Amino acid sequence: MRFASDNAFGVHESMLAALRRVNDGVAVSYGADEETRSVERRMAEIFECDVTVFLVATGTAANAISLSTLTPPYGAVLCHPESHIMVDECGAPEFYCGGAKLVPVPGEDGKISAESLRHVLDGLIVGEQHQVQAAALSLTQVTEAGTVYTVDEIGVLASMAKARSMKVHMDGARFANAVVATGASPADLTWRAGVDILSFGATKNGAMGAEAVVLFDRSLSDDFMYRRKRGGHLISKGRFVAAQFQAYFDDGLWLDLAGHANKMARRFADGIEVSNVARLAYPVDANEVFVFMPGQVHEKLQKSGAIYSSWPGAGPQDERRRRDGEILARMVTSFETPESDVDDFLATLSDHSS
Amino acid sequence: MRFASDNAFGVHESMLAALRRVNDGVAVSYGADEETRSVERRMAEIFECDVTVFLVATGTAANAISLSTLTPPYGAVLCHPESHIMVDECGAPEFYCGGAKLVPVPGEDGKISAESLRHVLDGLIVGEQHQVQAAALSLTQVTEAGTVYTVDEIGVLASMAKARSMKVHMDGARFANAVVATGASPADLTWRAGVDILSFGATKNGAMGAEAVVLFDRSLSDDFMYRRKRGGHLISKGRFVAAQFQAYFDDGLWLDLAGHANKMARRFADGIEVSNVARLAYPVDANEVFVFMPGQVHEKLQKSGAIYSSWPGAGPQDERRRRDGEILARMVTSFETPESDVDDFLATLSDHSS
Amino acid sequence: MRFASDNAFGVHESMLAALRRVNDGVAVSYGADEETRSVERRMAEIFECDVTVFLVATGTAANAISLSTLTPPYGAVLCHPESHIMVDECGAPEFYCGGAKLVPVPGEDGKISAESLRHVLDGLIVGEQHQVQAAALSLTQVTEAGTVYTVDEIGVLASMAKARSMKVHMDGARFANAVVATGASPADLTWRAGVDILSFGATKNGAMGAEAVVLFDRSLSDDFMYRRKRGGHLISKGRFVAAQFQAYFDDGLWLDLAGHANKMARRFADGIEVSNVARLAYPVDANEVFVFMPGQVHEKLQKSGAIYSSWPGAGPQDERRRRDGEILARMVTSFETPESDVDDFLATLSDHSS
Amino acid sequence: MRFASDNAFGVHESMLAALRRVNDGVAVSYGADEETRSVERRMAEIFECDVTVFLVATGTAANAISLSTLTPPYGAVLCHPESHIMVDECGAPEFYCGGAKLVPVPGEDGKISAESLRHVLDGLIVGEQHQVQAAALSLTQVTEAGTVYTVDEIGVLASMAKARSMKVHMDGARFANAVVATGASPADLTWRAGVDILSFGATKNGAMGAEAVVLFDRSLSDDFMYRRKRGGHLISKGRFVAAQFQAYFDDGLWLDLAGHANKMARRFADGIEVSNVARLAYPVDANEVFVFMPGQVHEKLQKSGAIYSSWPGAGPQDERRRRDGEILARMVTSFETPESDVDDFLATLSDHSS
Repeated sequence: MRFASDNAFGVHESMLAALRRVNDGVAVSYGADEETRSVERRMAEIFECDVTVFLVATGTAANAISLSTLTPPYGAVLCHPESHIMVDECGAPEFYCGGAKLVPVPGEDGKISAESLRHVLDGLIVGEQHQVQAAALSLTQVTEAGTVYTVDEIGVLASMAKARSMKVHMDGARFANAVVATGASPADLTWRAGVDILSFGATKNGAMGAEAVVLFDRSLSDDFMYRRKRGGHLISKGRFVAAQFQAYFDDGLWLDLAGHANKMARRFADGIEVSNVARLAYPVDANEVFVFMPGQVHEKLQKSGAIYSSWPGAGPQDERRRRDGEILARMVTSFETPESDVDDFLATLSDHSS
Repeated sequence: MRFASDNAFGVHESMLAALRRVNDGVAVSYGADEETRSVERRMAEIFECDVTVFLVATGTAANAISLSTLTPPYGAVLCHPESHIMVDECGAPEFYCGGAKLVPVPGEDGKISAESLRHVLDGLIVGEQHQVQAAALSLTQVTEAGTVYTVDEIGVLASMAKARSMKVHMDGARFANAVVATGASPADLTWRAGVDILSFGATKNGAMGAEAVVLFDRSLSDDFMYRRKRGGHLISKGRFVAAQFQAYFDDGLWLDLAGHANKMARRFADGIEVSNVARLAYPVDANEVFVFMPGQVHEKLQKSGAIYSSWPGAGPQDERRRRDGEILARMVTSFETPESDVDDFLATLSDHSS
Repeated sequence: MRFASDNAFGVHESMLAALRRVNDGVAVSYGADEETRSVERRMAEIFECDVTVFLVATGTAANAISLSTLTPPYGAVLCHPESHIMVDECGAPEFYCGGAKLVPVPGEDGKISAESLRHVLDGLIVGEQHQVQAAALSLTQVTEAGTVYTVDEIGVLASMAKARSMKVHMDGARFANAVVATGASPADLTWRAGVDILSFGATKNGAMGAEAVVLFDRSLSDDFMYRRKRGGHLISKGRFVAAQFQAYFDDGLWLDLAGHANKMARRFADGIEVSNVARLAYPVDANEVFVFMPGQVHEKLQKSGAIYSSWPGAGPQDERRRRDGEILARMVTSFETPESDVDDFLATLSDHSS
Repeated sequence: MRFASDNAFGVHESMLAALRRVNDGVAVSYGADEETRSVERRMAEIFECDVTVFLVATGTAANAISLSTLTPPYGAVLCHPESHIMVDECGAPEFYCGGAKLVPVPGEDGKISAESLRHVLDGLIVGEQHQVQAAALSLTQVTEAGTVYTVDEIGVLASMAKARSMKVHMDGARFANAVVATGASPADLTWRAGVDILSFGATKNGAMGAEAVVLFDRSLSDDFMYRRKRGGHLISKGRFVAAQFQAYFDDGLWLDLAGHANKMARRFADGIEVSNVARLAYPVDANEVFVFMPGQVHEKLQKSGAIYSSWPGAGPQDERRRRDGEILARMVTSFETPESDVDDFLATLSDHSS
């Protein structure tokens, strides 16, 4: 019953095999190796367009460097108040952007709403020297609430940003889960809907430490290159990161792994929906399940060995929904979550309800 | 005849085994795992004192974050004009330190001289608000010239820095090679000589991407922790970096690998010393060999398939030593450089001399 | 009927006289002059304690440099969502702090409430590396809503901050108006209530360009000195800024000027209170009057030549209070606002109501 | 005998008159006032082209903000090793540029030499991700050695920079003195020779605190505007800075004042040239006189009440020229230096020689 984080799991077997495969002879270091170039070609196929790809080791780096190529120091990054870049990166975007401001744009279920975006944009006046200038919109896909933006939703928000000459970033730490969830093509979910730069994570979905930044707006490439090096994120033996992405894409492994995780979350959610003890806090679109449950149920579950996070639920809508005595909990399923973990959890929960 | 870089080689077999070993079940993510804690304990044994250890993926990160814990934005980092942090990190230390200044302190053979350090310190007046304030001294061990500071040399420079209330950083990207070269204990080479914080690299010596920052001054720990996260260098599946260090230390592997690299460099240097075509530019203390050779010899070697770097040799003393028509070349030996590569090179060189 | 801003007025006659007085012979430049030292002594008398004083030319500089001495790059500055540092400084605090985050702490009438502060502090966990760390509390006195914190209110908020080892900053761009409004001593309003560093403005109250930063926590002095120079805020002919403060303090001029401005605002507010067209949005404690009025009244007033700002009123409580068709307007009275301006405005308003 | 600094003198009478003149009624604050606009028009006439002008209070701000509009964080600013931005601004350019690197380009007599510039540019490889990228060339006019670049010298250096797609900044803290010294038109000395942005100082030449940044490349205007506000350098009562420039330009006052200062320096230099005790260290082109003199003469002069700075003389060429027992001293003449101060100094010196 391990649902703490998709990062708590190890790596998929094929990753280890890939590392071994590329460990042969010498290679040009610092990202100029053949393995890295081949990943760029694979990405171009997946996204059906020319792209520039930079590999880094962490999602925070992918997000923060990306945003720094879009946002001047006096710029504003618009993002959901509960987004990872706002809450969980210790100010990394502000650091990389040279002190830019992250401006919260709220919305239900972890998604920025068009109405909020309009309101925030109205308050940030173009050319007003006393204010930070709206420069980038960052969308998290899968969101921090485990929900998924549709292609249309992305298009609407991105076009509002574009109308203000802003750039659009997507934090795709769980991008594979979103692709599976929507059934949409990677291209439709990104550049065709207006995304300029994508943090494409593999780590949470079975890799060891492999995150790609995919630039659809290739004019940003040089700027990204220097900012990556300067951030200490140019990896010397780059082929070992590239190898992980090769394994990730071979035979559609990335979609298989995400598909499994999503399926386990669906199974979990189905169980919650019929439970009379707990209830879902958000729609379950991908591999995260947010649950309201009475505090005493939470305590019993933890005693039974269930591992998951009680969630701060900072947003006002969470507070509004929460009933007295309830806590909000987050369960994450992963590429290797066994059905039995889900079933055991639901059975334990069911015991408590009686 | 592959001497381009120690980063161009792959990883030692035991690294792959270690990655496999720790890939079992779930672990706490973000550096709180048991593997990481055990690396800290191993470091404490190696350095004979309590230390705080942070693991990161690149040497640039290790250096830049370390320096940022020592240096305020209005501070100066004193370092050799040819040091990696000065020349090869695209301004990473300046970025992490919030715009501090790197002040060059020259010296022969890649080493800061005590005389230069005194001169530079005399020019930086304590309390003079128009000037940056000397805050950190950074020593590179092995130096960029392939030479090694003795314990006494470190002690002299560090004590001059301490007398000014400065902190001392050591860039130990090739620390293992320095330990082997000097025969000194890790403790004598670092904190006993005045070093406060060490970038302890493993990547160049057989690891995949594993650098440790060792804090002898543990009061810096909290500051380091936040700066690492903020720089995007907190690795989620941290056990896979820790595992590399475990393998690195098991049965003294790190010293064996460095010992081999140093031995190959010695063999190389011995061949150069008896050559009548090329000559050594610097003493060969560790695993780098700098060679002056006529341009036409260089061309022939490259045609023969020898891989190495022609070196800018920015320093005035290089220029002074270089004869007309000569180029400066850097050859690096690694943990898996075969004797035959060295011998082939020397034989090729010998052919050219006739 | 000029109520746009206290910055729109010129300078008090005594300022020009003071500039002339000190323009005699040579003086040590860069703040080491005798005039500047005498200002520091005067401040020590006014605040009844030893202080370090730095003079700068703008309030934004005073605030941003002050905050940068309190807040590490990974720190958070807690402030009201409508505060000047949050809304009107184009990210200056983030810039000076190296990318710190400003975290909004709401409250009615422009004041941070103790309840909100507790809630925000609960959400920022000490030692949690994924989060920015609460480092400074910034209080604006007079607030952006024209209200004034009482000595007790400051004490409560400051002690909550101190319990978390945070430092307390006060943005006193209109500090004189607050002293007059409360009748409290400058010491009681600041360090005795827990304030560590004060931006003490004179520009809005009759000076030309003179802002003092008063450090009650003198351990921050060196850090401040370098950061000021580095920000370009060390003024070479410093005696001309110091002279303005001398004139400001001579014969209690600062309190007389603020007293007049406050009195004019009171007269204004009294008129609004009896009006049946407009109504006060906030209590009028100092020299700013916020008024709700119907849009058509606003248009007529402007046609009559009344100069004031329609105010965004970003806060949810403003929106809640605002009635359909109303706008929120800000009127500022200054040291030289004539009674006739106030009376003319009220008369014009009265005409509209009929 | 007051030769310490041009900042040690007060302000010209006409400045005080101008401050009084504009202190009438209300004005739009924050630089949108009519006085500021008129300064921009005057600058356009003086430079014979359309320009954007920003006013700030200090030369450090003018330089640092200017450089930040030209240089990305991973960029390099090329400047003389003894330039003010390198030595005397406590890292302000690095701060404003987000951690860029200042790269020294030496040359005799305080001037960057074309040969050095070529050498430094050769060492900074375009597109090499490990290195900072050459972005701006900064020329100081008058130089820190009191010499003046000719129009041709500026053209040669600027064209080398332009060939690398770099931008050119001029630190004109003593620009008026350079205009007088060269007899060249302001346009020829700046944009016609390739300068993109000029820090045009008035403070050292009789103003109180007034520095203009003149943008010949007007595409940088928006970026400058936000960076100025963010640096805390947007002055609220801007008309009082603008008024100083109006007085500065009225009836050619700026050139008269600089002309006097230059003339006094010439008189000083002529006296030194015939002295048999002291000798000139650099050509005296403007209002600074650098003198080598025996230490004992220096001591006697100071006892006689002469005020000037003994100068570090960090450059190798100074050291080379300096004879045993000599010190290097800097004397600065100002707009109000009386002939008698010069003559008294020379007489005192003459006494010592006997």
